[in-house]
Parts: sequence; C-alpha cells; structure tokens
Amino acid sequence: MPPFPTIPALHAAYAAGEDPRAILAEVYRRVADADDPGIFLALVPEPEAAAALAALGPFDPASKPLWGIPFAVKDNVDVAGMATTAACPDFAYTATETAHAVEKLLAAGAILVGKTNLDQFATGLVGVRTPYPVPRNAIDPAYVPGGSSSGSAVAVARGLVAFALGTDTAGSGRVPAALNNVVGLKPSLGSVSTRGMVPACRTLDTLSVFAGTVADADAAFRIMAGYDLADAYSRRLPLPAPSAIPPGLRLGVPDAQGLDFAGDALSEAAFAASLSDLEALVGAARPVDFAPMFSTARLLYTGPWVAERYQAIRDEIETRPEILHPTTRAVIENAKGFSAADAFGGLYRLAELRRAADAVWDAVDVLVVPTFPRPRTVADLAADPIGPNSELGTYTNFVNLLDWCALAVPGRFRADGFPAGVTLLAPRGRDGLIAAIGARLHAASGVPIGASAVPVPEAVAPKGPQGDAIELAVVGAHLSGLALNGELTGLGARFLRAVSTAPDYRFYALPGGPPHRPGLLRVAAGTGTAIETEVWALPPEAFGRFVSTIPSPLGVGTLRLSDGTAPKGFLVEAEGVVGAEEIGRYGGWRGFLARAAG
Amino acid sequence: MPPFPTIPALHAAYAAGEDPRAILAEVYRRVADADDPGIFLALVPEPEAAAALAALGPFDPASKPLWGIPFAVKDNVDVAGMATTAACPDFAYTATETAHAVEKLLAAGAILVGKTNLDQFATGLVGVRTPYPVPRNAIDPAYVPGGSSSGSAVAVARGLVAFALGTDTAGSGRVPAALNNVVGLKPSLGSVSTRGMVPACRTLDTLSVFAGTVADADAAFRIMAGYDLADAYSRRLPLPAPSAIPPGLRLGVPDAQGLDFAGDALSEAAFAASLSDLEALVGAARPVDFAPMFSTARLLYTGPWVAERYQAIRDEIETRPEILHPTTRAVIENAKGFSAADAFGGLYRLAELRRAADAVWDAVDVLVVPTFPRPRTVADLAADPIGPNSELGTYTNFVNLLDWCALAVPGRFRADGFPAGVTLLAPRGRDGLIAAIGARLHAASGVPIGASAVPVPEAVAPKGPQGDAIELAVVGAHLSGLALNGELTGLGARFLRAVSTAPDYRFYALPGGPPHRPGLLRVAAGTGTAIETEVWALPPEAFGRFVSTIPSPLGVGTLRLSDGTAPKGFLVEAEGVVGAEEIGRYGGWRGFLARAAG
Repeated sequence: MPPFPTIPALHAAYAAGEDPRAILAEVYRRVADADDPGIFLALVPEPEAAAALAALGPFDPASKPLWGIPFAVKDNVDVAGMATTAACPDFAYTATETAHAVEKLLAAGAILVGKTNLDQFATGLVGVRTPYPVPRNAIDPAYVPGGSSSGSAVAVARGLVAFALGTDTAGSGRVPAALNNVVGLKPSLGSVSTRGMVPACRTLDTLSVFAGTVADADAAFRIMAGYDLADAYSRRLPLPAPSAIPPGLRLGVPDAQGLDFAGDALSEAAFAASLSDLEALVGAARPVDFAPMFSTARLLYTGPWVAERYQAIRDEIETRPEILHPTTRAVIENAKGFSAADAFGGLYRLAELRRAADAVWDAVDVLVVPTFPRPRTVADLAADPIGPNSELGTYTNFVNLLDWCALAVPGRFRADGFPAGVTLLAPRGRDGLIAAIGARLHAASGVPIGASAVPVPEAVAPKGPQGDAIELAVVGAHLSGLALNGELTGLGARFLRAVSTAPDYRFYALPGGPPHRPGLLRVAAGTGTAIETEVWALPPEAFGRFVSTIPSPLGVGTLRLSDGTAPKGFLVEAEGVVGAEEIGRYGGWRGFLARAAG
Repeated sequence: MPPFPTIPALHAAYAAGEDPRAILAEVYRRVADADDPGIFLALVPEPEAAAALAALGPFDPASKPLWGIPFAVKDNVDVAGMATTAACPDFAYTATETAHAVEKLLAAGAILVGKTNLDQFATGLVGVRTPYPVPRNAIDPAYVPGGSSSGSAVAVARGLVAFALGTDTAGSGRVPAALNNVVGLKPSLGSVSTRGMVPACRTLDTLSVFAGTVADADAAFRIMAGYDLADAYSRRLPLPAPSAIPPGLRLGVPDAQGLDFAGDALSEAAFAASLSDLEALVGAARPVDFAPMFSTARLLYTGPWVAERYQAIRDEIETRPEILHPTTRAVIENAKGFSAADAFGGLYRLAELRRAADAVWDAVDVLVVPTFPRPRTVADLAADPIGPNSELGTYTNFVNLLDWCALAVPGRFRADGFPAGVTLLAPRGRDGLIAAIGARLHAASGVPIGASAVPVPEAVAPKGPQGDAIELAVVGAHLSGLALNGELTGLGARFLRAVSTAPDYRFYALPGGPPHRPGLLRVAAGTGTAIETEVWALPPEAFGRFVSTIPSPLGVGTLRLSDGTAPKGFLVEAEGVVGAEEIGRYGGWRGFLARAAG
C-alpha cells in the first residue's frame, strides 16, 4: 500500500499486481494503529469491507473509476444498516437507505471503511463539540481538528482512506481541511444530492470531499454529482471538468481592510507566500472590497438561519433538549428569538447582499482568501467555545449564502511548520475552474500530503473536452481577454488549448462594429495562412445557444487546425468578405488589434 | 376615440390624423362619465397629462411603441410626485421616484391617467377590502370587482384606458380580469422589475398587466420586462415573444377531481365551452392530477408566507395597527403565529411540492384552468369576508409559489351573460407561448372586450419559434420525408413552416455520399436563386448537438428567407463547392432528386 493512498497510487499498485485484499487489510491496520478513537464513530466490519471488495470482480478502473478505493463518510450521512448519529447518541437511528451520493461512490467501486466524527449536528467549525472523544489534529494535537467534519479530515490526513465525505453549510468542509493539511472541495450547492444527509440548513447544505490531492477530490465529486429529482434542492448545473488555466484569468484577493489574520504574523506570512505562488501561475491579483461578503457572513451569525438548524431537529430540541451537547443546544436554541417575518426579512437582505457581492465577478474570475485567519488550539476553545469558532468562519461563512463554490487547498506552511491554508472561490458551476487552479497551486506549494511525507504530485491538465462537451475554435473577440470572451465563460465554456489553423485560410477584418469582428474563410489547402485560434469546450446546450446568436455573415463550420484536430469553429461566408481588408499577415486577431492600436 | 381604446385602434386613429389632444380629453371625459369614485384613488391632472402628450412630439409609433396610449397604475406602485396609498390613507407617502417598469412605459410614450384602487396592501382577491369606495364591477355591479387590482381591471373594462398595471402575488392580476371580462397577464416572476412597488410577499410578487386584448397586454409587458440590477428579485430570463401555436402542443386540464365550480353549473358549462374552443385550436386536453397544485395553494393559506406581508408593513402594524382595514389587519396579524423555523419549514415543503407539481410539464406544455370556481357577489362578501375570497383563489394561489406564468383570458360567457374566465399556465419564461394561445382563444370565444360592445380582433400569429427553441432552416436530406429528417425529429425538432430563401443563393450538389448532400452558398443580393427550405425549431441543447455533427464543408450560418425572417440554416463553405454541380435551376433538393430519379 502506498504511504499516502491517492487514487492513482492505489490503482498503480493494483495494476502492478498487489493484492487488493492485502491493501484493505493494511487500511484496517492503519486505522487501528492511528490509535485515535475520535476519528471513527463506527467502522464497517473488516469482513464486510472485504466482501464488498471481492464483489467488485477483477481490477477494472475503466468501468469502476474508484475500484478498490477506501473511503469514509461523515456520520451525518446515511449508510443503510449503520447508525447515523450526527454525533448525538440519543438522536441516532439505523439508516434503511444509503445516501444517494454514497450509492454512486459504491457503484463506482469505492470501499466504505467507516463513519466519522463531527461537531454535533454539523454545528461548529472546531471539532470539539462532540460527546465522543475529540479527534486529534493530524499535524499537531495542540490544535483543534476543525469541524464540523473533523473525523473525515483527520482520516484523510493520516492516510487511513483516500478520500472522505464531509458536509459544508458554513465552512465544515474547508476549515478542517486546512487544519489537517488536506484538500477540501465544497461543491456548488445542488450539484451533489443531499438525499440521505441529516440537514443542518437545508437551503445552504452540501456534501463535500476531503482528499489528499485536488484530482482525487474532484474525481469523487464528479462521480457524486448529478441532478436528483428526489432531492428538492438538487439543481441542474453545468459542471465543466477541470481544464488548463485560461490565459488572462483575473484573480482577486481581499484588499488590505479585508485581510484579517487575528493578529497572527505567521499566518499572514504564509498567506502572502501562497499568494505569490498563485500569482506566478495566473498573474497578479487585484484587491477586492470584501465588505459585502463580510456583511453576508454577519447575516448568517446574527440572522434567522439558525432556525434551519432548529427546524432540522425540531422534535428533539422541543421534547428532549438535554440530549444535545451544551454548546450545540445553546447555539441552536437561539432560533427561538426569530419570527417568520424575521426569516423573510433575512432572505430579502441576503438577496440584496448577493447582488452587491456578485458584482465582484464583473472584475475577477476567481477569488483567493485565507481559509481562516489563524489556526486555533484546543486550549483556545476550552477557554471560549464560541469566539474562536466564529473567527474560524471569517472566510467560509458567506460562501454558501452567496451560492459560490470553494476549494480549500493546503498552501505554504507557516514558519512554525503548521499549515495555513488558502481557499479559492468562484461563482456556482465553476468548480472545475478552481480545481484546475487549485491543483497547480497545491503542487507549487511544495508541502507534503496530510500528515505524510509524500509530496503532492504534479498537476496534470487534461486536454480534451470531457463528457459531451463540444469543442469550438474561436478566432476573434471571443479570444481570452478580448471583448466577447465573457460570452463564452458566462456559458460555462472552458479553455482547452491555444493552437493555430492549418495554412488553409484567408483572414479578414469585417466592416461594422463595435465589437469589430474578423472573418475566417477556407481556401485551397496550403494556399492560405495559419491563423491563431483558441479551442474552448461548451456543454451542448450552451453551444446551441451560442451558435444561435452568431450574426451574419459569420457562422460555424469545421476548422482544420495545425494539431490535426478539426473542431467546430467560426467561419465567414464568402459573400461577407467582399470589400473587407485581408489581415492574414498579422497571424491572428490579437496581432491585428495590436497593429490597429499601434 | 375608438369605442374601446386598444393600442392598434388608437394608433390607427392617430395615423388617420385624429387630434391626440382631443382623444386625451375624451379619456378624461370618460373617466368623469364613468361616475365611479372607486376606480381611481388619484388622477393625473388633465393639463399634466396633456403636457406629457405634447412632450412626445409628433406621432411616432416606431420609436415610441406606446405613443399616446393612456394607462393607469395600481396605487401600490410609485409614481414620482404622487401619493402611494396602497389603499391605506394613513400609510400614504409621496413617491420621489417612479417605479422602474412605469418609467419604461412612459419612455415608450404611454400617458399616465391615474392611480387605481385596490384591496388594501394588495391583500385580497375581492376588491372590497378598501377604505375608499369599492369600484363597481364593470359587467354587473351585483358582483365584486375582484382584487386586489380592482380599480385597474375596472378602468380597462370600462374603456377608460388601454391598459393598466396591477400586481399579482396570489391572483390579484387574474381574478379581477376575469370578473371584468378583460385580459390579465401575470408574468414570470422576476421578468419585470418590482422596484417601486409596495411589497406584498417579496418572494412571490410581480407587476401584472390588464388590457382589452392579449396583444396589448403582451406589448406592455415586453416594454416593462428586463433585468434590473437594483431589484434583488429580478432575474435574467429568456422571454421569447408570442409565436404561432406549435403543432403537437400538449394541453392539460385538471382531472374531474380537480375541477371545482363550487356547485355552480353555469360556470361549469362556460368552462366546458371554452375548453372546447381551446381543443379546437390545439387538440384534445389530457386530464392532469392537480393534487400537488392544491397542496401548494393550501401551503400559502395555512403557511408562513403571510409573514412576508407582515414584514412589508412591520413598522405600521406594530406601532399603529388601527390604521389597517379590519379584515386586512386580521389576515396579516396571523403572521405572529409563525416562527422562523416555521418559515424555513414552509420553504422546504414548497421545494418538495415544486418537484411534484413540475412533473406535470413532462406530460403537457400548457395547462388550462378556470380563473376561479365561480364569481362572487358583493352580498356574498358582506356575509363572509374570508370564505369567498379564499375560494376565488382556488386556481391562482399556487401559481407564483410554483414559479409559473399565467394569462387570464375571458372565455365563453355563462348562460346568464356574466363572464367566467379561463387561465392558461406554463413554466416560467413561456409567457410568449401562452400569449400566442390566449390570443387565439380570446378571439375564438366571440365575446366583446370588457364592458364594451367591441368584438375581440382576430389574433395575428407571429412567425417566430416558441419557448426558447432555435429556428433552423434545412435545405437537403433533412427536409420532411427525406433520408435525414429523422435526425431532426429524433432530437425533438418541430416543423414551423415551408418557405424559400431570398434569391441570394447558389445551390450545389456536393460530391460524395450517400447520403447525397446539397450546398447553399450566398452570393450578392438578387443575383442568385430562391431555394426551397423548411424551418424547424429545436431546443438549444438539441440544436447544439445537431450543429456539432454537421460535417465539413457544411456549416450553420444565418439565412435570408423570402418571408423576411433570418433563421440559422445550412450553408456550405465556398471552398467546398469547387467542382460541384450547380443545381439552382431545380428550385431545391426535392426538385433535384426528382430529376435524378426521373
């Protein structure tokens, strides 16, 4: 078994002939050796896991992409036949059905090892609000493990499983990732079914994934993702897969007023170092006003959403509140102070704040923030169970309210060797974009995975479109950074590659505009010019809508590119270039614009 | 001035040289002659309206599509410099800004005549919950005018204005339309800005339009529609304009259990007659289970949404509840019984009911329902101010909660000569589809407009595609009955029309195949041939998939057709016809195939 069980490492071992049964036995040995009763609230009995492995048949990663991959599930998510405790023993019930998303993982060949500890009812960001033993932080036991998905983050960080499911309502899938030096992928709301999850705030809940690498987290996410008619909060979202980082990507970072490290110089320096890594990858970050985001976070803390937690366990808290952890009970009983009118008032305010916060996407494509201001210790929380918890949510609380997606990536460590953590944020549906960036950033940071000494592997950028995306070669104002590129990104298009055409084209500047437009006209093979293009991938519906808006004399045909591919792409009608200037000598639209500007 | 002031009738009068000032004077004379102090709560002083008319300049319907069209606005919508009362004199304030949607109407040349009466705070469906005189029903004063937009519906029905704005949260834009024999257009939520409207339930509110004809209501709606960044509930919705009724449209009607006329045989017979008219237009209706819709309606009546009305006037109802109408106060104070947890519980239940209700759209494209079970009299409401009000909302309450659009159309009258009213329902964004159907149904009913004797004009079917389908003109093997037509129908394409191109094309038989393919190449205008095409409509995703499979040298551009439209369609690259046979003399692919076969 590899020292850190990434999916590729495990599959390489299986492919090399290692006995899957021996690897599974090693998983259980590691769980025992971890000597931390706070991680798992229940284990799948080893013979049952072995039987599940045997039932998979021969190693077959093509049809079962998670073949033989051990994983864990936070104990507020149902697995048929096992107790779901939500870390409240007196609430526990034996689940009769397995959560929809977990079913998908099992169908893809993943092997469930156990159910993990959490802040009771997923209410907390610290991991200590549990009646069970508190999981030890995998990097330094003086620190809290983070929550609410404490056990899942620690299980991954200690290399017990390849990935683990968490849940995330206000940061529970991100804070413990950063505190344990693993990746925490918080998907766009509604992209993964929450059927079979004990609700925290149903309007804000999502399942999340902890893994050692971004690629592994993304792989599990994509297997779970998909519309679920039976989950009323599931949504049909286009979810383009990770790709290369598009040229001209605009990065934003909180401005000086928005950067808060709670006075911790070590965390501040670590974030600066990670930001430098990121800027080296995608270009300089622009400072962004975070006032609307922080107002949104305050709304969560002072507003009526706590009533969702109340509603989720209403029977229990009204009939036997004594079964709750004292801190959890105190937090959730705050709901009694809010009326239905207050609830709607909060929703109105949120709708307005969303408008203000979403304006940031006019200026940037991706935001980077610290995952939390500074890590907090078990002693800090013993002294004050509320304050440090709130502080840990500074950069996570607003994200689900704003309907954004997030990826917590271990960045550079602090000078004292403890991880700091950065989080990438983007509008809903851009999970693939931040995964592409996060994978590169993670590799650039030079840190090991979790509590292991295993280095983060190089990020591999996939080349082709995945699923049923359609490739489109653009040649004009839709190129990255030019006037109409936002039409593509707004439709969920993702950049695939920059490549020139075969030398079979004439290239024209068409009359009219703005925006000014070029026209690409095919001529006899070899008698034209090679013209700069970019190939983007669009989902079929987006591609259809896009093509329907292309004005005469432009259209979409099949292009011949220098890399031998022949995607769909922009062409001009021959009749449309009568009298137009031939500009092939500039090699492309950018060259022509530079001439025009010069 | 025409006896009923539709937009086309007024514009025809202006075009024929009638003095707009004389027509405006006639509007004010009709208002005075109407002798009903309950219709308007405030009139724009006639000299001010005359000045607004003079400021429009010469008659110019091309740049100002509502040039000189008199309209009214419900008095819960702001007009700068006028009081907004919401039918609560002690709540009234003088507006400093005009509602965004009203600004758009004024900019299009409409002339505001006054502000109309309503059920106080738009809370009611009856029109009698006002401290002002109750507007008299325009058809029979024994009946209530309907509400909450009572004054607007009556003003239109009596021919005082061409159209009037209402608002609609639970039916306020539909019930009074049916009771006064006019059209009530209830747009998709978020399509028209509600900025400048006194909220009722902000999550469910929309402005609405009353007019004598569907075309006029649709015209006003389309001028008002559009995304408004400053309205947090505004949405970017595609809103295709009305078109021809698509062949194969699937119509649904409540099943026997779902049809409720409160024991009124006259209303039942009138609905059956209107349904027959509609079936003659679009084909037989299939019965649909309305249980999820009625459960949704019950949720509105028994659930926490009343707290939205409370939140909207919270200061008033908490500090001086005595300023409210007694019924309104009793209704809105019910909000005090709901906690924030109840509010979220209601939202969860609604999310689940939406799933159940939206399943209907798998089986049908449009639903038709009675606008209400039976009309109710002023005496009914005096005897019971609540019960008949609830009954009137049977077929309207659930619509905004489900995020559907609606169009109330006068159908066949009851045998006693009083209108009954039918409502068309469709998913959000299909406003254009139900307008196309509603216009035909209205014309087929043979009833006069409002309280006038003017017959409903014939509906003119515009030519565009319905829904957000994309038009594609085909010229070769995809024509009906030819080899590749199944590719289109298999993708859910719908035939729209057979039409030839403009005489701007050369037409070629391309080498290769089978299937043999033609190529259409545009040349200088008028120097080519008119070629046979068929225009089909495809959903965006199907269109995208279809385009992605078109092989070189074919592609998709914009065609010029002889009917003046310019849909997407098949074109060939100029380089692809080198050496190909020109076959334009056959007029199209069918002609060429007949030649080849002969």
